[in-house]
Amino acid sequence: MQVRLNTAEDAAHAIRSMQVRGAPLIGVAAAYGVALGLRHDASDSQLAQVIALLAATRPTAVNLHWALARMRRVLEKSALAIRRETAWQEARAIAAEDVATNALIGVHGLRLLMLHQPKDAVLQIMTHCNAGRLATVAHGTALAPIYAAHAAGIPVHVWVSETRPRNQGLLTAWELAEARVPHTLIADNAAGLLVMQGKVDMLIVGADRIAANGDTANKVGTYLKALAAAAHGVPFYVAAPLSTIDFSCPSGQDIPIEERTAAELGAGDVPAINPAFDITPAHVITGIISERGVAAAEALAQWKT
Amino acid sequence: MQVRLNTAEDAAHAIRSMQVRGAPLIGVAAAYGVALGLRHDASDSQLAQVIALLAATRPTAVNLHWALARMRRVLEKSALAIRRETAWQEARAIAAEDVATNALIGVHGLRLLMLHQPKDAVLQIMTHCNAGRLATVAHGTALAPIYAAHAAGIPVHVWVSETRPRNQGLLTAWELAEARVPHTLIADNAAGLLVMQGKVDMLIVGADRIAANGDTANKVGTYLKALAAAAHGVPFYVAAPLSTIDFSCPSGQDIPIEERTAAELGAGDVPAINPAFDITPAHVITGIISERGVAAAEALAQWKT
Repeated sequence: MQVRLNTAEDAAHAIRSMQVRGAPLIGVAAAYGVALGLRHDASDSQLAQVIALLAATRPTAVNLHWALARMRRVLEKSALAIRRETAWQEARAIAAEDVATNALIGVHGLRLLMLHQPKDAVLQIMTHCNAGRLATVAHGTALAPIYAAHAAGIPVHVWVSETRPRNQGLLTAWELAEARVPHTLIADNAAGLLVMQGKVDMLIVGADRIAANGDTANKVGTYLKALAAAAHGVPFYVAAPLSTIDFSCPSGQDIPIEERTAAELGAGDVPAINPAFDITPAHVITGIISERGVAAAEALAQWKT
Repeated sequence: MQVRLNTAEDAAHAIRSMQVRGAPLIGVAAAYGVALGLRHDASDSQLAQVIALLAATRPTAVNLHWALARMRRVLEKSALAIRRETAWQEARAIAAEDVATNALIGVHGLRLLMLHQPKDAVLQIMTHCNAGRLATVAHGTALAPIYAAHAAGIPVHVWVSETRPRNQGLLTAWELAEARVPHTLIADNAAGLLVMQGKVDMLIVGADRIAANGDTANKVGTYLKALAAAAHGVPFYVAAPLSTIDFSCPSGQDIPIEERTAAELGAGDVPAINPAFDITPAHVITGIISERGVAAAEALAQWKT
């Protein structure tokens, strides 16, 4: 399905309804949303209104707010006469940087994968949700090192968890099939058993917001996988661009968790709640992979610019 | 839907296809299956054949094998002339004992619930899969103490996890609604977040087989919930009749895990696997509730008869 976005409202709807999803792609879509919103009126008040509209779409992924803050900073300094053009330029820059950033995550992650590669056996990686190219402009975050390993001829197999209630695991399975990377879908519930059985060498997931202390918000269910990894001494990595780190957010407790409609569970009128993210504490994260390299979750301050 | 079982083959099909499910109910259905299988031929060879047919249906729930062993023991001693009648009597006895056993689990569990009841607040209980009356002849195992607490006027609320891929959580929600016990459905993935947020006072689940050392096989996903409970100091209980304890099985590693068809995931031709159970190690189980009382998972030997 292809969706054409003509207005800032279209962009806001696409983000809110998850036509675009994945923290990095949400950031890029919001930046283009600002450019669309200034097409007929590039005034300060229109800029403020468009940014407020887009900022209100989803609360957890910080890349959204990072991209909007960047657009605001650049556009407020831009003369009215060239503001529209500046907006398109900056949105294009954000998109292009996402491609380069994820390529670097692939490079740094590949070194880690080689470190964990078992002798004479396929490297077994588990992921959660979708953090491949469909969640970014290209390459993906968590999947970038996997694509890189596959391209480098390292034998990998990926355990893809279904990721209820939205089943984004099917997006990951589709991406891996397209890239010809061997993979197997599992129910989210099966993750603990596979880790216990020694069938997982490492886990890699993306992130929606990383607090200054390394606590990480990602798709709900991530925390349970991290607990299983910690219980069995299996490394658990988070792959995300620096724009996902929110240094203004001291810890995971300060990250807002989006509550989505219970209808996503598809259980009719059974009372239900549907938090879309959870918090994985820094102490169960082996390392965070960004375009700058790999850091311990507790040592992100080194990346503060 | 009501299904009438006329033959041992009908009973085997009902168990295999999960028309009846829940470890205790599988045991009872198998016992009646033996009685059905002897209707036209009560010979030793027919008895052996019927038991083999029923034993091959599902590998993990030990109550199946417990009930079949009990039927064999009684029927081998029974004269051919009265063997049919003996089979019906013994099946009825197994069913009646299940009712009494679960009522006692409710009594012992209720004391535990009162212990964990917060002052001036609703007791928040999380469960997994379905271990209510639909999984037994009556009362249920994990839900027996909850029904008892509700009947005693103790305010309880139950977090019901969806339990992919078969969604048995909907059975639990249906049962709790029928019993007017407040409850909320969640995606399995949300369990870690709720435990972390302090929204769960205790967890209770059923069991399909408990090894001699207390390691417990239950519906896949149970282990992840136990890990979350352990990480946050929340008590995690297993409720099951003594017939679920397999003293011939030294540890969880020795429990066969049923691999069901990937079609249950409903993901078309995406490669998938579907293990139906996982193992929760004794050290993350706070206690096991049986008709004999509550014991530490590591101290089950006291119940060996």
